Amino acid sequence: VDEFRFSTRVKVRFSETDAQGVAHHAAYLDWLEVARVEYLAQFPGGYQGLRDKGIEATTIEAHVRYRAPARFDDELVLRARCGDVRGARFRFDYLIERGGEAIADGWTTHACVDAATLRPTRMPDWLKDELERAESSSAESTLS
Amino acid sequence: VDEFRFSTRVKVRFSETDAQGVAHHAAYLDWLEVARVEYLAQFPGGYQGLRDKGIEATTIEAHVRYRAPARFDDELVLRARCGDVRGARFRFDYLIERGGEAIADGWTTHACVDAATLRPTRMPDWLKDELERAESSSAESTLS
Amino acid sequence: VDEFRFSTRVKVRFSETDAQGVAHHAAYLDWLEVARVEYLAQFPGGYQGLRDKGIEATTIEAHVRYRAPARFDDELVLRARCGDVRGARFRFDYLIERGGEAIADGWTTHACVDAATLRPTRMPDWLKDELERAESSSAESTLS
Amino acid sequence: VDEFRFSTRVKVRFSETDAQGVAHHAAYLDWLEVARVEYLAQFPGGYQGLRDKGIEATTIEAHVRYRAPARFDDELVLRARCGDVRGARFRFDYLIERGGEAIADGWTTHACVDAATLRPTRMPDWLKDELERAESSSAESTLS
Repeated sequence: VDEFRFSTRVKVRFSETDAQGVAHHAAYLDWLEVARVEYLAQFPGGYQGLRDKGIEATTIEAHVRYRAPARFDDELVLRARCGDVRGARFRFDYLIERGGEAIADGWTTHACVDAATLRPTRMPDWLKDELERAESSSAESTLS
Repeated sequence: VDEFRFSTRVKVRFSETDAQGVAHHAAYLDWLEVARVEYLAQFPGGYQGLRDKGIEATTIEAHVRYRAPARFDDELVLRARCGDVRGARFRFDYLIERGGEAIADGWTTHACVDAATLRPTRMPDWLKDELERAESSSAESTLS
Repeated sequence: VDEFRFSTRVKVRFSETDAQGVAHHAAYLDWLEVARVEYLAQFPGGYQGLRDKGIEATTIEAHVRYRAPARFDDELVLRARCGDVRGARFRFDYLIERGGEAIADGWTTHACVDAATLRPTRMPDWLKDELERAESSSAESTLS
Repeated sequence: VDEFRFSTRVKVRFSETDAQGVAHHAAYLDWLEVARVEYLAQFPGGYQGLRDKGIEATTIEAHVRYRAPARFDDELVLRARCGDVRGARFRFDYLIERGGEAIADGWTTHACVDAATLRPTRMPDWLKDELERAESSSAESTLS
């Protein structure tokens, strides 16, 4: 947890539950995406800024480990960090907590692609620099 | 029911259920869309054909009446008909059945828009003609 | 707008967009549900309190009018009011705004049902009283 | 591919696309679930049979690798196999194809749990036996 400088929150929606009475396992991918978007919103322009420059970030791989069920109306803390930038690729790690308990963790890998051609394109230097600064900084920037 | 010449089928997915143990009410809008897409697939090109011509169909209004809950793994018959074409606008009516019982009905209205500008544009004559032929025909074209 | 004392907010998620580049029309039903849940959270127990008492609120009818597209990352204000309580039934009205512009409106009707039997059951008096107080009060309780 | 005896199909729904113009990465988890449900439907009772016996299958881990984007209206073949049954736990492997091209693969692990307590419970012998027979059989049972 110490390694996660960034966090944001979601509340489990009723539409995200399933007939087992808990949050459906696919909803977690939506939450991880919310965390990525909010993470990138720390930087000038954010994710929409990337898109405005004709760059999309596609998801290459996704992994989630479900430790304890999330339930309707639970308030969840989504911790995220970005790193491992190599050319077009980068990786996010996540921890999902409820009341201090880790209920899920996961990671996703992504590639920057040209929005028009969907071909891989290097992450812009400004974003790479911002990411490195955000993750290496000793300053606290957690929102939780 | 006699007035619906077209029908298609969906099976309720587990991801579409909610913590009440029944299909979530928003899933019905996805099913109505499945019905529209399959309906338009009767015609050369289908919905993707419209999109390839730079035309999108946006949803202007949606109405659903839920009569009896749908449950996981239920096979549903989606009946649909299109009509009321006026310039850019058109309307779909729907009936959702399970084992012969009507469990929901609804309607949606749509507008053809230019995909680039999102401005309203008349429905192409070929589609209007096809729709009228499909709905006025005495021939049976139901798939159910 | 003056008639809506309650409001809450959502941000359009990327997972809620579709290939037209705007929020998918079914996502609005999820947002209206978020608004209902937050609305009921004004009262002791909230929606979960109802569920804990063995009462579920099912959706009987839903209607949405889409006036202007919502886009990724848009912050939306969801205005809601509840009324028209008759036995087991009640109704919510909604207005969705972005930057002061009304981009959608709608209404839903619901019935209180026994969670075990799914049979209609009168809305509990405490909730009916709370609703009437909330909607008739001259006090401002908007969150926006 | 040779190792997958089972397959089923889905068509990409418009509601499953996102503003990148392709299927959203969370939709794949819904499809894998459709494949699991159809896979289990090969056996008497199927997934609902498990649920009727008071057993739920929870998802413990999910992993997806996205190789090529899926698009609206694409017909996808979902190949699945189940194995690695150990006490309460089991694993599914998947391959998603479009026109013979592998566009994604993944795996999920699950645990049988008592529906009332959500505590792990051994997979019923009848299901374990059926799974072993299905996967070891030299008979072709693919649906594709």
